[in-house]
Amino acid sequence: MSLLVTGTIAIDTIKTPHGISEDCLGGAAVYFSMAAGFFSPVRLVGVVGDDFSFNLAELFAGRDVDLTGMETRAQSKTFRWTGRYHQNMDDRTTERTELNVIAEAPPKVPEAFKDSQCVFLANTVPAIQLELLEQVEKPAFVAADTMNLWIQEHLTDLKILLKKIDCLFINEDEARMLADEFNLIVAARKILDMGMNTIVIKKGESGSILCNADGDIFILPAYPANEVIDPTGAGDSFAGGFMGYIAKTGKTDFETLKTAVAYGTVTASFTIADFSLNGLTKITQREIDDRLVKLRKLVTFS
Amino acid sequence: MSLLVTGTIAIDTIKTPHGISEDCLGGAAVYFSMAAGFFSPVRLVGVVGDDFSFNLAELFAGRDVDLTGMETRAQSKTFRWTGRYHQNMDDRTTERTELNVIAEAPPKVPEAFKDSQCVFLANTVPAIQLELLEQVEKPAFVAADTMNLWIQEHLTDLKILLKKIDCLFINEDEARMLADEFNLIVAARKILDMGMNTIVIKKGESGSILCNADGDIFILPAYPANEVIDPTGAGDSFAGGFMGYIAKTGKTDFETLKTAVAYGTVTASFTIADFSLNGLTKITQREIDDRLVKLRKLVTFS
Repeated sequence: MSLLVTGTIAIDTIKTPHGISEDCLGGAAVYFSMAAGFFSPVRLVGVVGDDFSFNLAELFAGRDVDLTGMETRAQSKTFRWTGRYHQNMDDRTTERTELNVIAEAPPKVPEAFKDSQCVFLANTVPAIQLELLEQVEKPAFVAADTMNLWIQEHLTDLKILLKKIDCLFINEDEARMLADEFNLIVAARKILDMGMNTIVIKKGESGSILCNADGDIFILPAYPANEVIDPTGAGDSFAGGFMGYIAKTGKTDFETLKTAVAYGTVTASFTIADFSLNGLTKITQREIDDRLVKLRKLVTFS
Repeated sequence: MSLLVTGTIAIDTIKTPHGISEDCLGGAAVYFSMAAGFFSPVRLVGVVGDDFSFNLAELFAGRDVDLTGMETRAQSKTFRWTGRYHQNMDDRTTERTELNVIAEAPPKVPEAFKDSQCVFLANTVPAIQLELLEQVEKPAFVAADTMNLWIQEHLTDLKILLKKIDCLFINEDEARMLADEFNLIVAARKILDMGMNTIVIKKGESGSILCNADGDIFILPAYPANEVIDPTGAGDSFAGGFMGYIAKTGKTDFETLKTAVAYGTVTASFTIADFSLNGLTKITQREIDDRLVKLRKLVTFS
C-alpha cells in the first residue's frame, strides 16, 4: 500500500546527560520517513522555512521517499525545538519551542499523494490532522499520534479525529489522561470506545501495548538498550517501522499488526542509540531483521 | 528438589483505593508458600507471636506446606505492617511497622529441613538471611529478595550475601540504587558482577527482566490486569511461582528459568486480583496453566 506521512520537519537542539546536539535535523515526519523507508516507499508532506539548510533528498538517498509534498516557504522560518532529557531518558523538558512556519497555514497534500492508502498523521493540532486527512481520498488505514497538550486544550477536535482514524499511537501518561483511568488495559478499552479500532500505547523503556476493539492484546518489551544516547524521534521511528511494515505487507489483521509493533520496536531501538537521525542512517534492513530475531528470542519461553 | 522458604509471617492492614483490609494474613513466607505450593512441596521457616490466630495448616490445606519450621513464640507479638497504596498501585507508603517478634532472634531451620536443595530467603536484614542460609547444608539453588533499606544501611552484609546466592530478586528502583546506574540492563550486569549468577528485576505492571552472568536476557511483561485490588505479596508470589517451578523440574538452566519467570508472573497476577491471600486460595493449578498459555500468546509474534 502507498504510505503518506504528514508532520513536522524540525531543527532540534537536544541536551542529554551524554552531551548536546545543536541545530540538528529532527521532526516527526523526518524520523518517520527514515524508519518507514526501510520497508516501503514513503510520501512526505511537511513544510520548512527558507532557513532550512539540510538536504533531505541526500539524507534519504537509497530510500524511496517522495519529497513532492515538502514545501519550502519563503519569508518563513523552520520549526525549532530545544529539549533537555533527564537522567531516566524517558522524561524531558521542552526548553524552547519556536513554532515559526508550523503556526502558519499547513502544507497541502499534493494531487499525486491523494490516493495514499496508508496515512500517518504525526503529532500536531488535531484540527490540522483532520484538514490533512480530508485531502486524502480513500485511505485504507489511518494512524495518528497525539499529545497531552491537545488532550487538554483541543479535546473536541481530537475526539472528532479519533472517529476518523483506524489506529492511535499514544504514550502511557497521555493514555491515562485521555481515558481518565490509571490502569492501561482499561484505559486502552476506554479510548477504543472513542472510535478507532486499534491503539498502541507506548511505554518508553518498558515497551508497548497493542489492543484492538475485538479485545485482542499484544504486549512487547522494548529492545534492551545498553545505552540510550538520544530518545528524540523514538516514537516516530516506532510509528515509521510499524506503518512501513503494514504498507509493505498490505495487511492490517492483528497478526500483521503484532509483527508491525515488533518492527517499530526494533527500528526505534536504533534511533535512540545516537543523536538525531544518525542511529537510523547508518544501519541496514538486515540489521533490523537480525534484531527482530533477537527480540523474538528475548520474549520467547517454552 | 526440596524447597525451603524463610521469611515473615505477618498481620497486615492494607489500604487501597478499593478499600481497607484490616488485620489480614500476610508476610513474605506465607505468600511465597501459597504460590510455590501449586508446583512443589514447601518447607516454611518463620516465627509468630502468641497473638497469631490464623490457622496456616487450614489455609494451606491441599498443598504440601510443611510447617515444622514455624515457631510460635510465647510472650511475643506477631510482626504487623500497615500500608497504603497510591493510585498507580505500584507505589505504597508504609504507615506503620511493628517489628515485634521479627526484632528478636530469628527462627531456626529444623534438622529435617537442612538438606533443602532450593532455598528462598525472603526479604529481611541480610545478616539474618546469611544466618539462616548457613543452617542449610548443601543447597543447589539459593535465591534472595532484598530492599532499599538494606542497600542503604546494611550494604556490607548484603554484598556478602550476594556472593553466596545464585539468584537475586530485586525491584527496578532498588536495582538502580544498588548498581548506582539508571539503565536496567547495565544495572543488572553490574549487580551480577557482585557475585550471583542470575538476577530477576521486577518492574511491577511492566513485568520483569531475567539476566544471567553469561549475558542471556529474557524480558516478560506482566499479565495484563483489568483491576488491581491489592498488590501486597505480588513479589513473593512471583518468587513462589518461580522457585516452585524450579523445585518441581529440578533444573536451573536458562530455558527453565525463563519458564519459571512466566509461572511467577502468572501466579502474581492472581495475587493482586484480591486482598490478602484470597486471590491465590481460590484458584487451581489449571487456571495457572491456562493463564500461562494466554501470556505466551500475548507476547508471541510471527
